[in-house]
This record gives sequence, C-alpha cells and structure tokens, in this order.
Amino acid sequence: MKESVALLERVTTEESAASTMKALVYHGPGVRAWEDKPRPTVGSPTDAVVRITTSTICGTDLHILKGDVPTVTDGRILGHEGVGIVEEVGAAVASVRKGDKVLISCITSCGKCDFCRKGMYSHCRNGGWILGHTIDGTQAEYVRVPHAETSLYPLPTGADEEAMVMLSDILPTGFECGVLNGQVKPGDSVAIVGAGPIGLAALMTAQFYSPAEIVMIDLDDNRLEVARTFGATKLISSADGKAVEKVLDLTGGAGVDVAIEAVGIPATFDICQSILAPGGHLANVGVHGKPVQLRLEKLWAHNVTITTRLVDTAATPMLLKMVTSGRLEPKKLVTHRFKLGEVMKAYDTFGKAAKERALKVILQST
Amino acid sequence: MKESVALLERVTTEESAASTMKALVYHGPGVRAWEDKPRPTVGSPTDAVVRITTSTICGTDLHILKGDVPTVTDGRILGHEGVGIVEEVGAAVASVRKGDKVLISCITSCGKCDFCRKGMYSHCRNGGWILGHTIDGTQAEYVRVPHAETSLYPLPTGADEEAMVMLSDILPTGFECGVLNGQVKPGDSVAIVGAGPIGLAALMTAQFYSPAEIVMIDLDDNRLEVARTFGATKLISSADGKAVEKVLDLTGGAGVDVAIEAVGIPATFDICQSILAPGGHLANVGVHGKPVQLRLEKLWAHNVTITTRLVDTAATPMLLKMVTSGRLEPKKLVTHRFKLGEVMKAYDTFGKAAKERALKVILQST
Amino acid sequence: MKESVALLERVTTEESAASTMKALVYHGPGVRAWEDKPRPTVGSPTDAVVRITTSTICGTDLHILKGDVPTVTDGRILGHEGVGIVEEVGAAVASVRKGDKVLISCITSCGKCDFCRKGMYSHCRNGGWILGHTIDGTQAEYVRVPHAETSLYPLPTGADEEAMVMLSDILPTGFECGVLNGQVKPGDSVAIVGAGPIGLAALMTAQFYSPAEIVMIDLDDNRLEVARTFGATKLISSADGKAVEKVLDLTGGAGVDVAIEAVGIPATFDICQSILAPGGHLANVGVHGKPVQLRLEKLWAHNVTITTRLVDTAATPMLLKMVTSGRLEPKKLVTHRFKLGEVMKAYDTFGKAAKERALKVILQST
Amino acid sequence: MKESVALLERVTTEESAASTMKALVYHGPGVRAWEDKPRPTVGSPTDAVVRITTSTICGTDLHILKGDVPTVTDGRILGHEGVGIVEEVGAAVASVRKGDKVLISCITSCGKCDFCRKGMYSHCRNGGWILGHTIDGTQAEYVRVPHAETSLYPLPTGADEEAMVMLSDILPTGFECGVLNGQVKPGDSVAIVGAGPIGLAALMTAQFYSPAEIVMIDLDDNRLEVARTFGATKLISSADGKAVEKVLDLTGGAGVDVAIEAVGIPATFDICQSILAPGGHLANVGVHGKPVQLRLEKLWAHNVTITTRLVDTAATPMLLKMVTSGRLEPKKLVTHRFKLGEVMKAYDTFGKAAKERALKVILQST
Repeated sequence: MKESVALLERVTTEESAASTMKALVYHGPGVRAWEDKPRPTVGSPTDAVVRITTSTICGTDLHILKGDVPTVTDGRILGHEGVGIVEEVGAAVASVRKGDKVLISCITSCGKCDFCRKGMYSHCRNGGWILGHTIDGTQAEYVRVPHAETSLYPLPTGADEEAMVMLSDILPTGFECGVLNGQVKPGDSVAIVGAGPIGLAALMTAQFYSPAEIVMIDLDDNRLEVARTFGATKLISSADGKAVEKVLDLTGGAGVDVAIEAVGIPATFDICQSILAPGGHLANVGVHGKPVQLRLEKLWAHNVTITTRLVDTAATPMLLKMVTSGRLEPKKLVTHRFKLGEVMKAYDTFGKAAKERALKVILQST
Repeated sequence: MKESVALLERVTTEESAASTMKALVYHGPGVRAWEDKPRPTVGSPTDAVVRITTSTICGTDLHILKGDVPTVTDGRILGHEGVGIVEEVGAAVASVRKGDKVLISCITSCGKCDFCRKGMYSHCRNGGWILGHTIDGTQAEYVRVPHAETSLYPLPTGADEEAMVMLSDILPTGFECGVLNGQVKPGDSVAIVGAGPIGLAALMTAQFYSPAEIVMIDLDDNRLEVARTFGATKLISSADGKAVEKVLDLTGGAGVDVAIEAVGIPATFDICQSILAPGGHLANVGVHGKPVQLRLEKLWAHNVTITTRLVDTAATPMLLKMVTSGRLEPKKLVTHRFKLGEVMKAYDTFGKAAKERALKVILQST
Repeated sequence: MKESVALLERVTTEESAASTMKALVYHGPGVRAWEDKPRPTVGSPTDAVVRITTSTICGTDLHILKGDVPTVTDGRILGHEGVGIVEEVGAAVASVRKGDKVLISCITSCGKCDFCRKGMYSHCRNGGWILGHTIDGTQAEYVRVPHAETSLYPLPTGADEEAMVMLSDILPTGFECGVLNGQVKPGDSVAIVGAGPIGLAALMTAQFYSPAEIVMIDLDDNRLEVARTFGATKLISSADGKAVEKVLDLTGGAGVDVAIEAVGIPATFDICQSILAPGGHLANVGVHGKPVQLRLEKLWAHNVTITTRLVDTAATPMLLKMVTSGRLEPKKLVTHRFKLGEVMKAYDTFGKAAKERALKVILQST
Repeated sequence: MKESVALLERVTTEESAASTMKALVYHGPGVRAWEDKPRPTVGSPTDAVVRITTSTICGTDLHILKGDVPTVTDGRILGHEGVGIVEEVGAAVASVRKGDKVLISCITSCGKCDFCRKGMYSHCRNGGWILGHTIDGTQAEYVRVPHAETSLYPLPTGADEEAMVMLSDILPTGFECGVLNGQVKPGDSVAIVGAGPIGLAALMTAQFYSPAEIVMIDLDDNRLEVARTFGATKLISSADGKAVEKVLDLTGGAGVDVAIEAVGIPATFDICQSILAPGGHLANVGVHGKPVQLRLEKLWAHNVTITTRLVDTAATPMLLKMVTSGRLEPKKLVTHRFKLGEVMKAYDTFGKAAKERALKVILQST
C-alpha cells in the first residue's frame, strides 16, 4: 500500500516537474550557456533529486569545453561537484531522505557490481564518472543522482559547505590517486609535480602520513608560495628545465620515495620518472591526452611502481571525518566566490587561473 | 695493528693462490675464451671461496657477449649462477663452513645497508648483481663470493644440483619480478608474454597462488607447447600480430588481472599494457634496452599498477623449501648438459636456443 | 508505466502467495518440525523470493536446536545455505531475474552501509547472518532473501548444485576466517585443528597458496584419513593429549607459521596458541561458547597475530570461479543425500556425524 | 691458522683491558650496586666497544631487579639503552668506526639469520634482546655491542643525545608494537591504555598516521594531563573501574578502531578487548606476567585482530629521520637528569615514578 502511495506521489511530482530550472549547458567546443532546462525528477527507485546549494568548477570542465572529452555531447549540463538538499528520493532509497543536506560524489556507484564490491567505484558498471559527463551534472539548480544511497553522503549539521564541496572530487582525487597509490609513509621524501588544486589536495593529504619532506614543483612561483602555506617543505621552480637536477641535489642524489604527477603532460611525467629512488612509487594523478615515453631501459632494474587511477571516492567517509574533526581544512583552496547565476563569469575567472591566482571558485545558490 | 696482521695474512694467501684454474673469460664484444686465471682467495673476513660443481648460462650472459652491458670489462669471468662446495671462508663467516654444499645467489647482499635491511638486496650498497659483472663470476672452477653469509644458501644433503642451480637467478626472477610484483591471486587471469626460461619460471611459480587461467603468449609454437606441459591453460601465438585481440576475446573483452612481461622489447610491453583489465597489474621482468611508449592517454583512468624489479632473491629460502618438498620442479627447465670444460660449446648451443630447443643448459664439473 | 504494471503484478502475486509451503521449523530447544508455513513474498523493492532446489544443514543449526543461540525464536524456519531458482524480485532488483539459478549467501548484505563498503558484510547494518536466525531461512520450499542483488550470486548454466551449495557458508568460512586471516603463504607450515567440514574447507582452500606442509589435527582417526584425501600432508591424533608435542617434533621445535582453530572449544584454541612459531598467525574459525585463556605471559614477546571473523562471503565470487574452473571440488564434502521432505531424517544423520561418518548432507527438492 | 692469530690478538687485547670501569650490576632480587667491572673489549670480528655518553633506565630494569626475569643472573650489568662514542671495532666492522657517535639499539641483530632477513630482529638467532639481559648492558662506562653494523646507528653531527637515547627502545616499542601492529589509519579512533613512557611513545607516534581521536586511559590524573600535552584528544580515568563504559559512550557505542595495551596486566588487557569495534585491532605492547582471559565467546564473530610483539627496532632509521627533521620530539619524555655515577639515586627516583612524576630519567657521563 505504501508503495502504491509512492507511485501516486511520483506521478504528481513528475507533473509538477514540468517546471524548469537554470543550468550551465555545453553546446559543443567553446560554447556554454546559462539557460533553462527541465527540472530533473526521480526516474528509478534508487534515484534522488538534489537542489544544489554549493557547486564548483573543475579543470576537467575546462577540458570538456575545449572539446577534449568527446563523450560529452551537445546539451549536457556540466559539473560533477556539489553540496545540496535532497528534494525527492526513489522508493528504494532509505538511508538518505528529503531535506537531508548531502555531499554529491563525482563518482556514482551502484554498490552492487563486481567493481563496486572491490571498492573500485570509478569503474562501476552502472555508474562511475557520469555526472556532467554522460548524464546531466551539478552546475544547475537541481540534479538527479542515480544510486543515491551509495553516491551521496549525508553531512553533519552545521557542516561548512565550501569545505565539503572540496570532497566531491578534488580531495579524494589527490588523496587516493596521489597519496594512497603513492604509498606515502612516515619519514618519506615526497615530490609533487604541479601545484594546482589537485596537487595541493595531494599536498594536504600526504601530511596524513607524516613524510619527512614534501617537495613541490611548479612553473608558477605564485603557486609555489601557496604550496608553502599548505605545508610543502621545499619549493622547486621547473621554469628553467632543471627540476630533476634540483630534486637529485636536494636528496643527495638518491631521489624521492614518492613522486606524484598532478599535471597530465609528458614533461611532468618525465620529471617524475627521473627523480624516483630505487624502490620508489610514481603515482599518476594527471589526466593525460597523449602517450608518454617510459624509460624502461633505466627503470627495468630500479624496483619502481607506477600507478594510475580514476578517483574511486572510497576515501570520502574518512575525509569527511578529517574535515569534521578539524584535521583537514580544504576550504583553504577556495579563492573566489560567485552566485550560481554568475557561473558564466566564474568560468571566465577559473579559465584564467594563473592570472587570476584562482584555485577553486565557489558557486553558491541565492 | 689488527689490520696489518690481516694484511700479511692476505699476502700469504695470495701467494699460495699462485695456483691457477680454468674459467670462461670475456674479452670484449663477441670474444670469449676458456682459459687459465688465478684461483680466487678469501680477500675480506666476510668472503667465501666456492669450488663450482654445477653452473649454467643466462640470457644476460649473451647480452654481455654482444657488448650490451658496458659495465662488464675485458678479462671478466662470466656467470652469476652456481652450486658448489665451500673451499675456504673468511674469519667473520660462521654460518657457512668449508665443505658445505651451497647455492650461490646471483645477488650478493651485505645484509647491513639500508636497502638490504628492507629486503631490496638487488640494490645492496656493497653488492647487488656483481658476480660475472663487476667481479669475477661462476663459469669457472672457483669463485670468490663476498658477504658469504648473506649470499650463499647451504643445501640439504642429497639436494639435486640441477634443480638447485635454477634458484640462483631464474626462479627467483620469475617469481619476484613477475608473480609477486604482479600480485597473482587465487582465481586471477594471468598472461605471460614470453615463454623462454624466465617466462616459464614465472609460469611455474604463478601456480603457487592458484590463478584460474594462465595464458602464455610467444612467437614460437614449440615454446608454447612446452608451456602447456608447465601448466599454461591457454596458448596464444603472437606471430600474426594479433595477440591483444586474442586475449581480449578469451576474456570476454575484460582483459587480464595480471600481465607479466618476460621478453624485454617494446612490442611485448605493448601487448601487456593493451590487455590489462581495470585494476590490473603489469609486472615487467624483461631487461629492456630502449624506452617504451606508455599509453597514459588510455591508462590514466584505468587504475593499473606497473612494476619493475631487479631480482632481490629474497624469496630464495621459500623456493628452496618448495623444491625440497617436491612442490616445485625447476629441473624441468634443463634441456642440455655439458661438462664445465665444454662451456664454449654450451654457449654455442644456448646462443641458438630456438633452433636447439634449448631452455637451460647445465655445466657440470668433472 | 512499466512501474504501474509491476505494481499490479506484485499485488496479484501477493494474493497467490496466500498459498503455503513446507519448512523445517524450530520450536524451542530440542524441538523441530517439518510443517506448513505461509509461502514468503517480496516485501521490499530490494527483496527476492527463491524456490529452494538444494539446501544443506550446518553445525550451527545443531547449536540452534540445542538452544545455544537465544536470538533464534520459536517458529523460525532454519537454514542459511541454499541454491534455488528466483521466483520473484522487487522493483529495485535488476541484476537478478525471475528464473535465474542462484546461490544464496549465508550473509545478507545491503551493499550500502559503512561495513559493507569495507567488505565486512558479516557486520552489515541491515543484514549480516539473518537467514535461519532472525528471519526465516532456507530449509524450506521457498525463502525470501533481502538485498537480493548483493546477497545472491547467479550461477553459470550447468553448475553442479551440490558443489555450489557448499559456497553458501562452509567454503567461504574456511577460506576467509582460516586461510585469508591466517595469511597462508607459499612454503608455510600450516596446522588445522579440527577435521570437520569447516576444517576440511580450510584444508582445501589453504592449498590455493601452496604451503609446504598442512598438518591436520583431530580426535577422530576416520576424519583424519578423510583429511589425507583432501590434501593434508601430516595427520596428528589429539586423542592422547599430546598434539602440541607432536607438532613441535614435526617442526623441529619451531612451531607452525599458521594455526587454524576449527572447533570452537578452549582445548583446541590452546593447542593452536601452543604451536605457533614466532611471527605466526592464529586464525580462529570456531564458534566459541566460553572464554579461553590466552597465554600472554609467553606470547607477549612472540610477535604473533590472532584473528577472529564471522564469514563475510566477500570471497564468494572468487570461489565460484575456482569451482567453475575445476580447481576447487567442494562436492567431495558431500557424504549423504536426502529429499528436502526427509529433512527430519537428515538432521538425525547429521546429528550423529561421527558415527555416520557424515560431513555434509544434501537436501534436494524433488 | 687465521683463527689462532685472531685468538692471540684477542688475548693481548684482553690484557690491556685489565683496566676497569664503573657499572650498575645486578646481584639478585632487590640488590644492585655501582661497582668496578673489567672494561669490555672486542671479542669477535663483528663487535664494537662503545663508551657510553648517555643512558637511561627502563621499566624492564625494575622488573629485573624484582627478580621477575630469571634469565638475568647475578653479576650482570643492566641497561639496554644508550648513546655513545665508538672506542674500538672488530676486523669485520666497516660501516661504524672509532670516534663515531652512535645510538645503541636495545635489540642486537646479526642481519643474517632467517628472522633478521624477515625484519624480525627481536627473534634474531644470534642476538635479540641480550644487552643487560644475557650479556652486559649499557648502564656502565663502556659496553660491548655484538653485530655492531646491524645493532648501532651512527648519529648525525649535533644530534641531541637525550632525544636520541629515547630511540634505543621506548620509541620503536611504542611505534612498532602499538602503532604499526595496531594499523592506525587516518581518521581512526585509537585508545591507549597506560600513559607511562611506553604509552606516551605510542601516543606520539600514532600521530604519524593522523587518527581522528586518541583516547588516553590511565589511573593517574597527572599522567593523563601529561598525555594531553603529547596530543591525546580525550582523557579517561580508569580509577573508578568504568573506563569501558566511558569509551563506549565517547564512540556512540561503536568502540574504537585500535586499542593499544601499554601496561601488561589482565585488567588493562580486558579494557582493550572490551572497547574494540568490529574489525578493530588490539595491539599488545605491555610485558605480561600472567595469562589473560580472552572473551572468544563474544569476539569470535567480531572480526578482530590481536597482536603481540617484542620490539624489532626495524623502524629505528625512520624514527631517526623523524627526530632529525623535527617532526618527533621524544625529548619531551625526559623528566629527570642524573650523572652516570648517580645511577643508584636515579633508580630510586625512577622506582617511585608516580610520586616523583618521573617519565624517563637521563644518565649522563660527565
């Protein structure tokens, strides 16, 4: 009986959902618009619809806009990061309820397939990175989130939304792909190549494991200075092409225990593979568009480990605890704030990150 | 003072060593000779001198002879594999005694440096791969083994020398670099590219972990048939350039959990990186002379792990137990037998391995 | 629209479900009956109803019957093992369909709670061991399985039901609690105390990791002989109270690397803690009704690890692969077969396991 | 022959050692004296003799004095912690030289036996905890250290001896036995039972892994206040026998992820086993003189891991890096300082630790 009521209710909601909302829509390379779209509704018993209260823009959104991600098609609402209030849930959703404040994970996970059962949510056979990619995303007034129980995280009362929205993607990415895969240990020497938001997320979370040194490498002196305030113990400018020599000098020729690639181009991968100590770990975080040359003629005997990973967001519950307990302060990444309605302007700013000294730009509803 | 006594003693010993022995000596690219060399003596308190009773030839010896390993200089006695009888030990050697039958590890390990303390003997600061490389080796009547207590393994009475000499290098290499680094688990699908002695050693030892499938890939049909008798469950000829498609077909498009590279050229590495399932492990065993192209534009989001390793021989005690208990039969790798004095002929045979259907050739004293 | 049809259908099914079925019902200590019970129906969108084709009896069922498990109340249908055909699924169940042949896991797992996300399904906040415990079980013609997508495993066509039903509980229990927790490694010496079905399941699956020796210890010579046919390399009767001395003798005084407790009483735990080598692992599998004395005055400096575990059945997909590929033959555990309608007689036989030389008794629907 | 030369030399050296030194000597239960003893000399090629510059007293020394450690016999010089200057080394010692300032590990390790090769130095077949136990120790002007290259750690110039001497035993013990074995992870809740020096060492090093909470439990309010300054986030007095209830209250009934036992009596072990969350780790650090009752009737299904360990000091190189880089400040443990010649008085103070508010007492050579 309960279910037949739910069904009726659903029908009603669908009608009222004839109403529209505003959203940031991709219309092919270089073209984006803040325009009217139908407001999403629950389509499957495991869905939830969330009203966005805070969102942000990711470097990946810029790649999409350049046309680098052909799986994103004309008409797609962008965005895979967000915090919001649950508006409606499907009949099979129990652990999340209407009115809950939730964190939206950039990775949608069914919780049931073989990959999910192994904690490899990024490769979920019924999800993965789909928001703002193959289904509509979070840079909008509302978003439909499939597999809501395993893709949303209820937030504690009073949680700081700006801090929490950093846990949608950037913090778990830096932590899982960089720090966990790099197996950072107490006493280690760690180098992070790339002091952008992802590199800084790796820098913040590498400190969970108390490495002895964290060397930050970037072309941009401003970003390096920011890295110092986030806990880097050594700064190296790679502007002169001598980053490798400098790292080797710093380590007495030994190289580092962990090198984290947080840029996504051959040159930065090459720095990483050239500064690894025997037994070292190279954790790739960057999104690469081209192959790289792997120097196996040197590395074959070097006992190294190279890892890649699309973030699984399996670490999100732990990161939530760390923010709540005050041990992690991801809000420090926020440099600019806009109203959600100003998202076009927010993109302009974020698109000129170096000039604007932008790290993460916040989009706030009302 | 102590040191001057030690010095005197050493001089005396060296005199008595005026006696000579026969050895296989490298004289630059393409040139080798079976000739007289001074018989080695104990030079440091931690040395042992071993009379070789069984030795063998490694693919690496052929590389050296081609001039591919410039750190090997004219006059060097080759060989890094062997079983023999201890002739003499230094004053600080207690766990190995004159008359003991011992296995000589291809990796000399001091047991004291930071790398040794981590089990990374291959990078020992006072050893590593030095036999038949930077110091004289085992294709001789006698060999001096530094750091004897941590580089020799006493053999049980009645041990089969032909089986045991396979533990000097080839079995630990296949196991540590391929199987352990590849993290083979029960139920896994494993592909091994290269059915030479090292690939077969990986095949034998992968079975310690009960994978569901072991696919063997090689150009040579004869070697593939041999692989079947060693436990391969599927055979794939790569002669037509379609190995990748065949593996994907076999696995329903999923790819394999573990790919072991046991050749050392870009083409075989490329097969490995193309057949990995998400979350898969690529364990490089092959000795590479050139860089390879790593397809990061595909693999960055694939959650893969790529490892390299120079064998540490840390697994040797376990492998000894497995041979002794009859669970591992490395003797099956032996296809040809020669007297030590026929080593020149043995090289001829081993150098034409495909034609001669040679896997490992045994060199026996008397 | 599809959904409203589904709803109608469900209502119809519920009506027809007024029909009854036969089931083995617990009526307080010592009292069981094969009697009529209402046939179960889908009660939540994530439920499935399965028609049982093969079931079996567990040692735990005997404990329940003795009154040892007070959380089982009068009127409960017993049984937590089974294979069957899906009759009906809830609206949110997609990966399992009507007509599928499935394995029923003894552990029901929601796939969504914090414990499930860590793979600790045994402690699922919405499931765990509930079948035949806090909800009705599988010794019946039909059973309702909550959280069907994460608690049922579709079986390959032609799968042997008798082999597969061993994967409901006993094989994952022996493997996860004994072998995985015991960290069995190639070359290890392993002792298993208790050669009943669970001990034999540990014995079968310990061989996935190629230990050098597996010593089986039991009071019953018949069971020890069975253990030999399952792969035990050494047999020790504990009937004379000298099991500890015998194990120490066998291992040259060293003790074993892994001791698996598969009985559940202080005496057998005590054997295990007394035969551990320094650095050894004691994996408790047995269900204990009393505390044990832990000899910390000896063990504090012994570098040992002691583990407990209620089976999570996280290994079930791997075990399914191993059975399908022929590397695991759990059917060997089956000693007796009965019709489901003869379950009262089957209990009589299983209740006198030693006398009847019974391991697992199969219950088959006609 | 070599050996007879070595012997002669030894005799000569021993003669010159006719010179005496002062040492703290055990003369049976309750009896200790600061008296003349022969100055030790190099007896084996792998020995070193170290002149003590800083030492300290361990709780274990008090146990010995009470007669609790029967393997310590009349006439033994006590002490297994120290920093000093190398006076003389054996012929096989190369990595440590006369004049080096070194840290003496409480665990002597040969580096060659099977246990040492696994990093389990505590069970070294030619060493282990022998200093101040089965051979003469460090509460003396000089000490002979066997296996010097693998039992001494050269210190960086300018190293603070008081900080460094904490690395002889107490810091590696708290870290290895408590933190490493307890598998402390970012976000964990950790409870440490016992706020003495060892418990505080665990507290300091647990923070390497950024747990969310560290609850300190002790009877003594003064020690709890000290724990707060070392980083404890919650303090619980166990004086009222209600520690278990309080921990469960603090964790919302869930229990803790890691419980570290740092006392060594049944009551404190019992607290630990009663506050473990499912999946939790109980790391025993305390030295126990009696068995404890293990509540397997509850824990068998609780998926817990219990570990014991005699410190291996395998973590010493990492801890040295952490002190040198300023991330670890073990000097905070020092509450009292004495001249080495005042060691009798130092024992009096340390023996009344609670009253004197003593943690570690330093013994300095003039």
